[in-house]
Amino acid sequence: MMRFFSDNAAPVHPRVMQAMADANIVDTAYDGDRWSGKLDTAFSELFGQDVAVLWVSTGTAANSLALASLVQPHQGIICHREAHIEVDECGAPGFYTGGAKLMLVEGEGAKIAPQTVNDLLSSIRADVHQVQPAAVSITNATEYGLIYQPAEVAALGALCRDRKLGLHMDGARFANAIATLGCPPAEVTWRAGVDILSFGFAKNGGMNAEALVYFDPALADAARFRRKRAGHLLSKGRFLAAQLLAFLDGDLWLENARTANAAARIIADAAPDRLLHPVEANEIFIRLSAVEAAALRQQGFDFYDWGEGAARLVTSWHHREADVHPLAKAIATL
Amino acid sequence: MMRFFSDNAAPVHPRVMQAMADANIVDTAYDGDRWSGKLDTAFSELFGQDVAVLWVSTGTAANSLALASLVQPHQGIICHREAHIEVDECGAPGFYTGGAKLMLVEGEGAKIAPQTVNDLLSSIRADVHQVQPAAVSITNATEYGLIYQPAEVAALGALCRDRKLGLHMDGARFANAIATLGCPPAEVTWRAGVDILSFGFAKNGGMNAEALVYFDPALADAARFRRKRAGHLLSKGRFLAAQLLAFLDGDLWLENARTANAAARIIADAAPDRLLHPVEANEIFIRLSAVEAAALRQQGFDFYDWGEGAARLVTSWHHREADVHPLAKAIATL
Amino acid sequence: MMRFFSDNAAPVHPRVMQAMADANIVDTAYDGDRWSGKLDTAFSELFGQDVAVLWVSTGTAANSLALASLVQPHQGIICHREAHIEVDECGAPGFYTGGAKLMLVEGEGAKIAPQTVNDLLSSIRADVHQVQPAAVSITNATEYGLIYQPAEVAALGALCRDRKLGLHMDGARFANAIATLGCPPAEVTWRAGVDILSFGFAKNGGMNAEALVYFDPALADAARFRRKRAGHLLSKGRFLAAQLLAFLDGDLWLENARTANAAARIIADAAPDRLLHPVEANEIFIRLSAVEAAALRQQGFDFYDWGEGAARLVTSWHHREADVHPLAKAIATL
Amino acid sequence: MMRFFSDNAAPVHPRVMQAMADANIVDTAYDGDRWSGKLDTAFSELFGQDVAVLWVSTGTAANSLALASLVQPHQGIICHREAHIEVDECGAPGFYTGGAKLMLVEGEGAKIAPQTVNDLLSSIRADVHQVQPAAVSITNATEYGLIYQPAEVAALGALCRDRKLGLHMDGARFANAIATLGCPPAEVTWRAGVDILSFGFAKNGGMNAEALVYFDPALADAARFRRKRAGHLLSKGRFLAAQLLAFLDGDLWLENARTANAAARIIADAAPDRLLHPVEANEIFIRLSAVEAAALRQQGFDFYDWGEGAARLVTSWHHREADVHPLAKAIATL
Repeated sequence: MMRFFSDNAAPVHPRVMQAMADANIVDTAYDGDRWSGKLDTAFSELFGQDVAVLWVSTGTAANSLALASLVQPHQGIICHREAHIEVDECGAPGFYTGGAKLMLVEGEGAKIAPQTVNDLLSSIRADVHQVQPAAVSITNATEYGLIYQPAEVAALGALCRDRKLGLHMDGARFANAIATLGCPPAEVTWRAGVDILSFGFAKNGGMNAEALVYFDPALADAARFRRKRAGHLLSKGRFLAAQLLAFLDGDLWLENARTANAAARIIADAAPDRLLHPVEANEIFIRLSAVEAAALRQQGFDFYDWGEGAARLVTSWHHREADVHPLAKAIATL
Repeated sequence: MMRFFSDNAAPVHPRVMQAMADANIVDTAYDGDRWSGKLDTAFSELFGQDVAVLWVSTGTAANSLALASLVQPHQGIICHREAHIEVDECGAPGFYTGGAKLMLVEGEGAKIAPQTVNDLLSSIRADVHQVQPAAVSITNATEYGLIYQPAEVAALGALCRDRKLGLHMDGARFANAIATLGCPPAEVTWRAGVDILSFGFAKNGGMNAEALVYFDPALADAARFRRKRAGHLLSKGRFLAAQLLAFLDGDLWLENARTANAAARIIADAAPDRLLHPVEANEIFIRLSAVEAAALRQQGFDFYDWGEGAARLVTSWHHREADVHPLAKAIATL
Repeated sequence: MMRFFSDNAAPVHPRVMQAMADANIVDTAYDGDRWSGKLDTAFSELFGQDVAVLWVSTGTAANSLALASLVQPHQGIICHREAHIEVDECGAPGFYTGGAKLMLVEGEGAKIAPQTVNDLLSSIRADVHQVQPAAVSITNATEYGLIYQPAEVAALGALCRDRKLGLHMDGARFANAIATLGCPPAEVTWRAGVDILSFGFAKNGGMNAEALVYFDPALADAARFRRKRAGHLLSKGRFLAAQLLAFLDGDLWLENARTANAAARIIADAAPDRLLHPVEANEIFIRLSAVEAAALRQQGFDFYDWGEGAARLVTSWHHREADVHPLAKAIATL
Repeated sequence: MMRFFSDNAAPVHPRVMQAMADANIVDTAYDGDRWSGKLDTAFSELFGQDVAVLWVSTGTAANSLALASLVQPHQGIICHREAHIEVDECGAPGFYTGGAKLMLVEGEGAKIAPQTVNDLLSSIRADVHQVQPAAVSITNATEYGLIYQPAEVAALGALCRDRKLGLHMDGARFANAIATLGCPPAEVTWRAGVDILSFGFAKNGGMNAEALVYFDPALADAARFRRKRAGHLLSKGRFLAAQLLAFLDGDLWLENARTANAAARIIADAAPDRLLHPVEANEIFIRLSAVEAAALRQQGFDFYDWGEGAARLVTSWHHREADVHPLAKAIATL
């Protein structure tokens, strides 16, 4: 079975496994250990800015903690109708924020345009009967594998600053976005107005570590309590910190993402007429009939159906060219 | 530095590390993998009863999910004033239950007696102005290292059944309790009336896996949603399931707990006059002046002060006799 | 100023005021008084079925308590995109349910069709990543003044029973609906599958009393605690109960609603070409340019703009024919 | 039956009833009416300070909204073990704050001393595992009818300012406290460091109106949304505002409280040896055997048993001397 249904299915990268093995010594519990102690510095270097970083085990926890930092229970969060926080987290943002409301907007490929946010804002009466938004959450790369350019984020960032809205970026595939953009991570985050980034590693070769990055370190103080209160302060946090440090070491995170993106490119190039969205990261959405889907599965390829007549294929860090060419060929010859 | 401040500080057992390495292959995400799929059966065998098991990363998450299964937001949970859920989880039960109230009782060594529960129940008016308890939570071994015997749990269990209260057992050190009791795990859990067990492995040589055991599998259905909603459904859950299976394999969990308990026994025997509580598991609470504490630390031993004139020492699976004798001797010769 | 902007603006009916004055004697606090004690019987007679009734002060409280009775925090409530619970209650359902999600559907005039609910249900994956709906909430009369016929409710009720969904009816203007339908209240509620009704009186001549009607009395037990916990158990509840009893006495509720509906009919008949929705209760939505709106206001009529080029007019129990004809005439001669 | 079981049982004062009748005209809904619009000014005059005032229907709602203004869900509120918010509100503070924890302290007659607060603060580790308090809530007059003097409140206020804790005063019987103190309301509130006051009127001759007074008006902004979200923004709020204004008019609130206090004094003076607490407001706690209690009830007096061998008697604004003397005599001659 050749699995392309999710980058979650991939193994953990050997260097990450090795870092965890190296951390398997006696040390202080929770986040008092030597690995956790290095995170702020390491990520501050990466972002060229003082940041506070909290490790958590899942993207859902990262996103929800971030949103709870930005809104009160009676407020709202503007996001895309197909955002992961809306459709795939079982209402986690509602749980962590105490019932704040996701306010949905449309946009091609799960991208949000400033005008759409403005339109939504205009439709809300400024009285106590209606939930008032206090944050915007965007995903980069989006749920359809599209990339926000620095200028696009900056436009949203300016709008948010103007309207006193926090800006959160769900970066479950942030590495894939940066691999495509080729810019410093700062360009598409804090310099563009992002307040908090959920920086994903699990889909990129990690085991269970994500970095919740606060570009305003003061915002992180309450989040540390909320993390504990949510049961996300692991007693042996050193194993999470070690994963993150292994990723930063020698830019493994970027190398892995480049590999995954390159694999996606190969598949995309094999099926230009089938593409439902431009392929800018490591996800490929293609038109595929039920018969064609069955044919691919017959040949051992595994993937998600995406509604009727469509499929989603996801590549990961462990997909070498040799793994991908058979699929590309199979699609091309359907 | 010889650390006795927490069993959380210990390394992960090599067989558990190996199991995680073995699980580092491509498989389905979340809990759809082959390891997660074996948990119900493996734990059902251990308990001699059909159980549903959810892995989670921390004891706090396990406890909170369990309590949320037993009470509504407007209800209460009876627990000891020094229970971990009350003093060391940053209000997590309040978060997960939507604001249910911990109703505190006293008891020597953090143990709860049925009479104490009865007294509390009698003090509550059965009207809507007062929070009505709907569950009892006990810890075995307790926060002071004491053990509930099967008959003691059964007495609480009978009371709970009679008063329509759920019964939760925080088993962060359940293995240590069973190692002392020498009885089948069933005796002190479901046969004694326990509805849900937080079965801890992290303090016993695991990395980040705890088993939330539902003796009534139907209760687990909602908990699966709540786990996801809390951000605790890890995308590569196979690494948690693999840890749990490694522990059950050849009763490693019991072997580790016996080692830890034996180490605690050696220290306890070296300081019989200092003991503040009987040593029945792997925690030792001793009278220790500030000068004596400093002297021990001077010799390289690390532990928690426990208020004035007292200290807590905790042993773990990796404390062999040779590691413990120096501490025992140091205490004896204070 | 002749106010047609809301039935909330109307005075309290004299018979209701008198009932409150009559209740101004010493009696037991909260809901232990003689008036509160008669509610279950009085409403059971009205509905021809044993019901449990809780008074509350607002429709928002009634709706939210009802929804909290039907769903768990990790579940969802299907409602219309323009339902009051979605657009005008500042997220109250999210607060009372602990974060449950409103799942929005479309429908002409804020009415929901069974097919629409079915379509939504079909679009949800039955896994823990997506919020699973557990209830449907409809409004009768709707936010656009349309009426659900008994058969329409029954079709939704059958679907709900089939899919194990609770069914709530927001009856802020239930009296206006019954006045139009001319059927026994039972026909469009419990006989049609409604589990809980928010039966509104404040818009119909009451001061601050709404009846939360549980057609399954057992469901009301927890709601009594939730009402207290929400601060809605008034210490002098007799004044709320007295209002409700005054409304049932001699069918004042129905008489008031008929008066309001008749007033709306007069206005509607004066502007048949302007109507944006059929006028079936006491709300009239008409096309009205900004210039025309200004002209009406100039003549002393007060109402809400409803987006661009439209207006909402609401009649109430105190609008006699003589009060309404001037407005009807003014519109007709625009 | 002569009822002394609660000041909640009393009727509404005729001037308050009249004010409600006078407000029974057409006006804007919610709190946009002319009566609501006068509240800030009226209470600012009373307190000699700019305040923001929100009406709510119950003391529970007032207290909970106040606490939610002062603490985050992961924080705690220090209060007396017998505070109303702890024992008689069915967990409402937990609901409104999203699960914040009440941290209980002792104190004679339900009064809290600064040293007790200090001791509690000292017992809490400043780490994320323990809930950190962010507010103190005191009741004046207390649940046992004792009065905090301005200097006592000021001592707590200074401590709170020093430790960055908010200070809330539950003034369900604030009028009774001021009637005894004879000082301007400012002395025992904002000048002493109180941030928010729940100013009760329902127990003092009101129907269903309490004033939530923010001495820092900026804090009230979010509370307005929370009030709506809790279903406490009544559509005909004018009837609540009218009650409050009637109370301020001619100091009716103070006159009523003086009457109630005087009635309590008469009873207290008749039973000096039975008093369990000094009688400083309108509550009398006396030793009373079961036989004696039965004898009083036999004579037509109604009151609460307060545990074994004790009883609580509460006087109200409508207890004239002639009403109270029979009870005083009956007790004296037991």
